[in-house]
Amino acid sequence: LVEPLEATETATHPPAVRLTIPHQKLALLHPADIADVVEEMTADERVAVFQQLDIETAADTLQEVEPEMQAAIVSDLPEERAADILEEMDPDEAADLLQDLPEERREELVDLMQKEEAQDVEELLTYPEDSAGGIMTSDFLALPGELTAAQAIDLLREKKPDPALTYYLYVVDPQEKLEGVLSLRDLVVASPETRVTEIMDPNILKVSAETSKEDVASLIAKYDLLALPVVDARGRLRGTVTVDDVVELMLPRGWKKRSGRTLAR
Amino acid sequence: LVEPLEATETATHPPAVRLTIPHQKLALLHPADIADVVEEMTADERVAVFQQLDIETAADTLQEVEPEMQAAIVSDLPEERAADILEEMDPDEAADLLQDLPEERREELVDLMQKEEAQDVEELLTYPEDSAGGIMTSDFLALPGELTAAQAIDLLREKKPDPALTYYLYVVDPQEKLEGVLSLRDLVVASPETRVTEIMDPNILKVSAETSKEDVASLIAKYDLLALPVVDARGRLRGTVTVDDVVELMLPRGWKKRSGRTLAR
Repeated sequence: LVEPLEATETATHPPAVRLTIPHQKLALLHPADIADVVEEMTADERVAVFQQLDIETAADTLQEVEPEMQAAIVSDLPEERAADILEEMDPDEAADLLQDLPEERREELVDLMQKEEAQDVEELLTYPEDSAGGIMTSDFLALPGELTAAQAIDLLREKKPDPALTYYLYVVDPQEKLEGVLSLRDLVVASPETRVTEIMDPNILKVSAETSKEDVASLIAKYDLLALPVVDARGRLRGTVTVDDVVELMLPRGWKKRSGRTLAR
Repeated sequence: LVEPLEATETATHPPAVRLTIPHQKLALLHPADIADVVEEMTADERVAVFQQLDIETAADTLQEVEPEMQAAIVSDLPEERAADILEEMDPDEAADLLQDLPEERREELVDLMQKEEAQDVEELLTYPEDSAGGIMTSDFLALPGELTAAQAIDLLREKKPDPALTYYLYVVDPQEKLEGVLSLRDLVVASPETRVTEIMDPNILKVSAETSKEDVASLIAKYDLLALPVVDARGRLRGTVTVDDVVELMLPRGWKKRSGRTLAR
C-alpha cells in the first residue's frame, strides 16, 4: 500500500539518509524520500540515479521532485529513457512535466512514448493548467453496468489495479457515459449476483474539464470526497481529480519538507 | 457512497434550495447542503430542523455546520436529543464540539451518551486540540492478524462498516499493537486462504497522539496517504487521522462555501 521510511518507532527519529547513501540502497526508500535525496544532488548525480532506478520507482520518484527540477532532469536524460519514465508516470503528472519543456523537446518525447500513454497525455495537454482537465488523471476504473458484483470482483482480481484506483469505482454505459459510483466496500458487501447498476449511487457529483481547480477543491472539501469525476459535454467519463491533488494544491509551499526537518530534532 | 445535490447536469446549475424549502424536503439533500441551509436560519428554525431530521442525518449535518454554530445548536436542543445526536457523530467531531461547551453542560451530555461512545469521546478530549490526538477519530477497522483474506472479507460483509473506514485496514496483534496495513483491494486480490499478516505492509508510518497536526498534515501530503494511524507508547492503535481532516485544516476559510456561490452564476 505505502512503503514509507522504515519507521519501526513512531515517526520521531531523524531521517536515516542524506547524500552518502549508495544508489542501490536508495531504491529501498519511499519515492517521496528518494525525491528529497535527489533534490540535494548535483545534476550529474541526479541523471545517474534516474538511469539506475527501475522504471516504476524512477517514475514515482520523478513526480515527487520539485516541478522545475523535474523538467531539468528529463532534459538531461537520454530521450528513450525519459520517454520510458514518462509512460510510467501518472498521466496528469507527465502532462504537467511536459508542459514545462520547450515545444520541440516535448513533441520528440511524446513521439517516443507508447501510443496509448501518449494519447492520454496529449489529451490532458489540451486543458488549461488551472482547470479540472489540467489537474485530473485519466487513470481510473470504469465498470460496464451489466456486470454483476461477482464479475466486477473477478475483473479486479484479474487486472490488479493500483489500490489508489479502487476507492471509487465508476459505472459507465456502452457509450462511456458516467452512470454512477460505488465503493469497493459496496461491491464486497453486495450479494454476488447483484448488478453493479443496482449497487451504485446514481446521484453522482461531476464537473466538466473547464471547471476551475479552486471549485474542484471546494467540492472535494465540502463533500469529503476522495475523487471527483470529470465528464465531457456528452457526459462521458474523461478522468478524475483525486484528493491528493487537492492537498498538493492547498499545501503551503515548504510544508511537504516540514516533516523531515521537524522530525529530525 | 455520496449523495450530493442531485446534479443531473455537470455542476454548473444554481443550488436549487434556500430558506423556502419545507423540512421534509431538507432531509433529501446531502448533509453538507442541509448545513448550508441551516446556517441561514434563525436559532428557533435550526432547533426545529435538528428535532425533525432522523438521528443519522442530524449528526452528519451538525458536523458540517460552522463550529461556533454547532455549540449553539447543541445548547438549544433538549439534552436527550443532543446526546443522541452526539453519539452518532464521528467521535473526533463530537469531541471538538463538546470542547466548545461550558464544562457543566459538557459533563451532563457525556453522562447521557451511551457508555462506549462516551468513552471514545472522553479519551479524545484528553488530547490538545492541535495534536494528532485532537484531530484523530477513534473509528477505524482493526483486523486480528490470524484472519485469512476470506475470513476478513466475511467480517466486512457481516459488519458492513462505513465505506470511509474500509480504504485502509489495520492489522493488530492480540494486545492491539499495530502490525501493518492493507487495502481492501489487497484483500480482494489475495488468494482466500492467505493470512492478512502475509498480505499487509508491515512498514507502516505512524505517529503518536502528541505529534503536531501540522506534522501529520505534512506526512499525509508527502506520502499521498488517505489516513495516518496514531499509536500510544506501547504501539497500540488508538485512532487515525484521515485526509479529509487535513483538507479541512488547510482549506482557506470560506472555500467550502465557494462552490455554492461560484456555481450559482
